[in-house]
Amino acid sequence: MVVGDISTGTDVAVIGAGPGGYVAAIRAAQLGLDTTLIERDAYGGVCLNHGCIPSKAFIHGAGVAHEAANAEELGVYADPAVDVERMQRWKQGVVDRLTGGVEKLCKANGVNLVEGTATFADEHKLRVAHDGAGQGSESIEFEHAIVATGSRPIQVPGFEFDGEHVLSSRDLLGMETLPDSLVVVGAGYIGMELSTMLAKLGTDVTVIEMLDDVLPGYEEDVQRIVRTRAEELGVEFRFGEGAAGWEETAEGVAVAAETEAGEESEYLADQVLVAVGRSPVTDTLQLENAGLEPNDAGFIETDHQARTDVDSIFAVGDVAGEPMLAHKASAEGIVAAEVAAGEPAALDHQAVPAAVFTEPEIATVGLTEAEAEEEGFTPAVGQMPFNASGRALTTTHTEGFVRIVADEETGFVLGGQIVGPEASELIAELALAVEMGATLEDVAATIHTHPTLAEATMEAAENAMGQAIHTLNR
Amino acid sequence: MVVGDISTGTDVAVIGAGPGGYVAAIRAAQLGLDTTLIERDAYGGVCLNHGCIPSKAFIHGAGVAHEAANAEELGVYADPAVDVERMQRWKQGVVDRLTGGVEKLCKANGVNLVEGTATFADEHKLRVAHDGAGQGSESIEFEHAIVATGSRPIQVPGFEFDGEHVLSSRDLLGMETLPDSLVVVGAGYIGMELSTMLAKLGTDVTVIEMLDDVLPGYEEDVQRIVRTRAEELGVEFRFGEGAAGWEETAEGVAVAAETEAGEESEYLADQVLVAVGRSPVTDTLQLENAGLEPNDAGFIETDHQARTDVDSIFAVGDVAGEPMLAHKASAEGIVAAEVAAGEPAALDHQAVPAAVFTEPEIATVGLTEAEAEEEGFTPAVGQMPFNASGRALTTTHTEGFVRIVADEETGFVLGGQIVGPEASELIAELALAVEMGATLEDVAATIHTHPTLAEATMEAAENAMGQAIHTLNR
Repeated sequence: MVVGDISTGTDVAVIGAGPGGYVAAIRAAQLGLDTTLIERDAYGGVCLNHGCIPSKAFIHGAGVAHEAANAEELGVYADPAVDVERMQRWKQGVVDRLTGGVEKLCKANGVNLVEGTATFADEHKLRVAHDGAGQGSESIEFEHAIVATGSRPIQVPGFEFDGEHVLSSRDLLGMETLPDSLVVVGAGYIGMELSTMLAKLGTDVTVIEMLDDVLPGYEEDVQRIVRTRAEELGVEFRFGEGAAGWEETAEGVAVAAETEAGEESEYLADQVLVAVGRSPVTDTLQLENAGLEPNDAGFIETDHQARTDVDSIFAVGDVAGEPMLAHKASAEGIVAAEVAAGEPAALDHQAVPAAVFTEPEIATVGLTEAEAEEEGFTPAVGQMPFNASGRALTTTHTEGFVRIVADEETGFVLGGQIVGPEASELIAELALAVEMGATLEDVAATIHTHPTLAEATMEAAENAMGQAIHTLNR
Repeated sequence: MVVGDISTGTDVAVIGAGPGGYVAAIRAAQLGLDTTLIERDAYGGVCLNHGCIPSKAFIHGAGVAHEAANAEELGVYADPAVDVERMQRWKQGVVDRLTGGVEKLCKANGVNLVEGTATFADEHKLRVAHDGAGQGSESIEFEHAIVATGSRPIQVPGFEFDGEHVLSSRDLLGMETLPDSLVVVGAGYIGMELSTMLAKLGTDVTVIEMLDDVLPGYEEDVQRIVRTRAEELGVEFRFGEGAAGWEETAEGVAVAAETEAGEESEYLADQVLVAVGRSPVTDTLQLENAGLEPNDAGFIETDHQARTDVDSIFAVGDVAGEPMLAHKASAEGIVAAEVAAGEPAALDHQAVPAAVFTEPEIATVGLTEAEAEEEGFTPAVGQMPFNASGRALTTTHTEGFVRIVADEETGFVLGGQIVGPEASELIAELALAVEMGATLEDVAATIHTHPTLAEATMEAAENAMGQAIHTLNR
């Protein structure tokens, strides 16, 4: 049965209820706009349902088991058994609670929720097709639309996801039993987070990466620390090899790999995980009806107010370009909502921090030393290794460092790179420092609680000024 | 054999190699001053040897065991055995590495190290008595002295520390076997940190506290969270009771307690830990020879440059007043060294953060809402509970909140209170905010990495502005 077409009007139509879309919708509603949020799948988007949150839950669970199993040095002897199905249920409980929370927050703020797939009819009108029981469609006329359709995993030719032999990160995070062995294609952040987690849970992991190291784009000393630790955990790396194809065998899959020079190898495993990146979702939108088209990279281009080339339409989050990060999507969503409400908002953030939840974690914000030089600064750089941190020593997690990059002339903090325990939390202080235009002196003169890992940030600032107490100054 | 008296001169004589003294000595030496650091016991002082560091090591070790033993929800089943002697050895290794590091850093910076007990001969001369093998004494003439003798545990009358029945925190942290049962006198931060840790390791803990709640001075909602969690861990509290005396029994000790109304109780345990606070160490110094005397509270009074009433003498750290915190001592030590070197330094820190390593942790900086009101501000207060934080949910540690206190008129951040996971690390961002005069807008506009606990700080700032996304605004 097809339900008859209904037509409604709204001030702001938001397409996609991920961290870009739901945040935009809530803010728009808070600003008094009649707001409609359209989602075809699940509230919270990929991040809450299939990405950041479930991966962090598994990484935490694996961490608890692995830490206890390797704490003889501390006098703690344990041989934990892991029930992956139970872990999966717990993870799903966390996800359900958060996605339910998003739905409740939207309703509490007065956002109209519509389930279905939105396509543009023109630059002020959407059609929303309902699936399943409530099938049919409706038209929604809007003053402004905010496109927040996110991204999906890139498919490698010959490695179409089947959820059985060839897994996406989403498939893997839905697993109820662990593969004994896994080939991972791609050593980017998703591949590395999942490989580390699986190795801790006992899976034999082989990572195939076309480039010559893990985590392309990160500095060499950061890469080295994370790669070395993954190797210690049992992850095997095959750099300089591309995945060429796979076939089913009696025991699982045989993955063929090839170097640029044409050398071939084959890796046997239960399954293969393909994690080579994500591409923006625009093909469902019929953008052309609104007079829009993606750029060559597939993204919808936007200006400093998150506006597309069409005045009535904004785009935020993964669909609007790199970096594909939930918090960047949320920040853009807020700007889009505020601009739609006539406020003078703009994307004038000084820096977008990023974190990788490997062991140890990586977190960065702003410029690296090399980037600062490229931009014409004379960088003053300071560093504090965690193996000189009292707090780190009391937790046995002493790998890594805090590095701070500043402008030598003015002292302004330009960026920071942290690799080590709790890096994802520690970067918040440096993000505030960059955002506020703090100087090295400001960071060094702020009293930091003892004993904490955060003292390393102060010490790195002192080191950059030649005044460190707990390291020799460079 | 008594070695003949030697007399030497130095620009700066620092008495005590704890976090106040060794930091002062290193900075003084970095500034080109001939610096002599005199320590009678162990480099690193109480903090590194018997306080912050060993307690955090044990708290971490206990946490690893307890977390793994209580992770069924995550699908992790473990029944860890704890070897306290092994944990003690590990802890001692951490301490030795850090104290060795302090000694090395002092030497690398050119600080002269002298072992012995220093007393003032006059306001420009110390006598140092050497103990043990190198016994004898020497005189040291100084341009400036920095007193950093720290503090020692307060003895309760009738509860003299004997290391066997009546323990100080230092005794407890040196233990090689755990008591099956323990009476703890005092529910301040030391009593609470150790009680929580011991409860996790299986000791039956009864805490006697004269006041009516844990952690005097903290806000009621903060106290409640930590007390409730300690109770869940099995700690029993007897509020409104004072420890009156104890006697040895066949099984350990019988501790007599009494309410103000005269009601008496008796608690049986293996041992009793007395943790009612610390008092400054001045009695070894013969201060009167330098024309100084402690104030009524026992502290050496100082001005904003850490100077005492005698121009040539500074005092820093616990001996110079509350709060007795290692990082406050270090900050004062740096100021004293810089002033001694003729630099225009001053104790102009806006705020001194503090942390308590209970479960969950507490960390605070600057003003509470009530303190802000007392100082004449109209406070704008925002809060974010960790049970609405995605990151907290992925770790199961969802108790507590981040609260931010600002001046409604200007938006300036005046303080923050965090109770929850990693509170001690998260406070660093708010400490920088207070130090730099950040506004709520600055904190809210700083992009925070998702998913992290630090997002709660941003959300608390947004909440104070009536713009929170993930909580309903108050």
